Amino acid sequence: MTSSEPVPGYTHDDPDLAPSPVTRAELDLLLASVLFGPADQQALHTAGKVLSGQIEQILDVWYGFVGSHPHLVAYFSTPDGAPIGDYLARVRARFARWIADTCTRPYDERWLAYQHEIALRHTEPKKNETDHADSVPHIPLRYIIAFIYPITATIRPFLAAGGHSEEQVEAMHQAWFKAVTLQVALWSQPYAGRAW
Amino acid sequence: MTSSEPVPGYTHDDPDLAPSPVTRAELDLLLASVLFGPADQQALHTAGKVLSGQIEQILDVWYGFVGSHPHLVAYFSTPDGAPIGDYLARVRARFARWIADTCTRPYDERWLAYQHEIALRHTEPKKNETDHADSVPHIPLRYIIAFIYPITATIRPFLAAGGHSEEQVEAMHQAWFKAVTLQVALWSQPYAGRAW
Ligand code: HEM
Ligand code: HEM
Repeated sequence: MTSSEPVPGYTHDDPDLAPSPVTRAELDLLLASVLFGPADQQALHTAGKVLSGQIEQILDVWYGFVGSHPHLVAYFSTPDGAPIGDYLARVRARFARWIADTCTRPYDERWLAYQHEIALRHTEPKKNETDHADSVPHIPLRYIIAFIYPITATIRPFLAAGGHSEEQVEAMHQAWFKAVTLQVALWSQPYAGRAW
Repeated sequence: MTSSEPVPGYTHDDPDLAPSPVTRAELDLLLASVLFGPADQQALHTAGKVLSGQIEQILDVWYGFVGSHPHLVAYFSTPDGAPIGDYLARVRARFARWIADTCTRPYDERWLAYQHEIALRHTEPKKNETDHADSVPHIPLRYIIAFIYPITATIRPFLAAGGHSEEQVEAMHQAWFKAVTLQVALWSQPYAGRAW
């Protein structure tokens, strides 16, 4: 997977992407709340290089985790519980891009807009639409928050595989943890409405 | 702060506490989603002992973090922005109990019920009520999610101060990270309603 291959349904750079309801000022306060600073941005750039050759292995781990839990794979399945292979595969390709994007994209208006699009794709208004999937209508917020743990914990061995010092690996891992927490906070917007 | 001192507004053991809308089965699936198992419970028990003599120092760090960010201390302040000393102090005493509870309480129906009570105390229906505080009406969900990062990252030096091996400290830290993520997932329930 290189970043020049087109990925079905991946619309980060689509000029028609709707703007996010989240403002730049709100983003800045969220960044401060997760203690995200320039050193984290640097560390994520390094992480992007370290992870780029390991994307499929990372996705094997994550899909293995989801696939081994019926209550999770249900969200990639038909309402009566049959996993939808094509849906799993298409989302997997976009997930690969997300790993790279998390490490390399600047946190600007376009990034915010695609964050909002990803949020909506987990909720009733947009889930299934991109892939014309005959799946269940939405993903409960509680699991999105819960996933901060596995998505953060399981990345560490991959960050450590690039031959960096323990201190550098730890800096990459902390930056990743912050970036994932930040994104889940953003993705909770369509779930919480006015209380977001 | 010993666990026998009464803490104003702390109602974990109040027999009149309303039950949680979250079921035991839902809790079990959430525990699986954050990979929480018996080894984590063990590690948290050890953490409880390590942290018990350091509670005030931990709270100094957390309150220092909140106090140094106007957009955060605002939630302990009057609507026109004056911090309310008595409110800060009373919540701090309950926060001290929460640290111990997170490490030592079994995750049963009573624990679930108080989790729900804590959730509500961050939202419009119950914020300010316990302390008769003249403060703003609710805490935005995004900051509650964001706090998973600081509440997890800043605890590590305190976990390491008990003379345990690096491996044991890491096990305590991972268990803490899971427990905090789990609780934030539970606390998002009143914010998300049917999409929780
Ligand atoms: C930290 C939490 C999570 C992260 C980082 C994450 C990441 C992603 C990404 C990057 C995509 C593709 C976005 C795109 O279309 O470009 C996606 C879509 C999807 N995710 Fe998640 N996700 C999380 C939580 C969950 C959970 C808990 C589930 C349920 C098991 C889930 C199920 C799905 C599904 C079914 C899609 C496809 C949605 C659609 O129909 O377009 N995700 N996720
Ligand atoms: C991981 C996230 C958080 C944790 C673990 C946490 C923990 C707690 C605990 C244990 C209590 C006392 C509960 C009781 O009454 O027994 C509390 C109350 C409170 N928290 Fe949080 N909190 C979190 C996020 C936040 C955020 C982001 C803010 C905003 C700055 C905040 C502001 C408050 C306030 C104002 C109260 C008092 C609520 C009332 O009026 O009863 N909390 N929190």
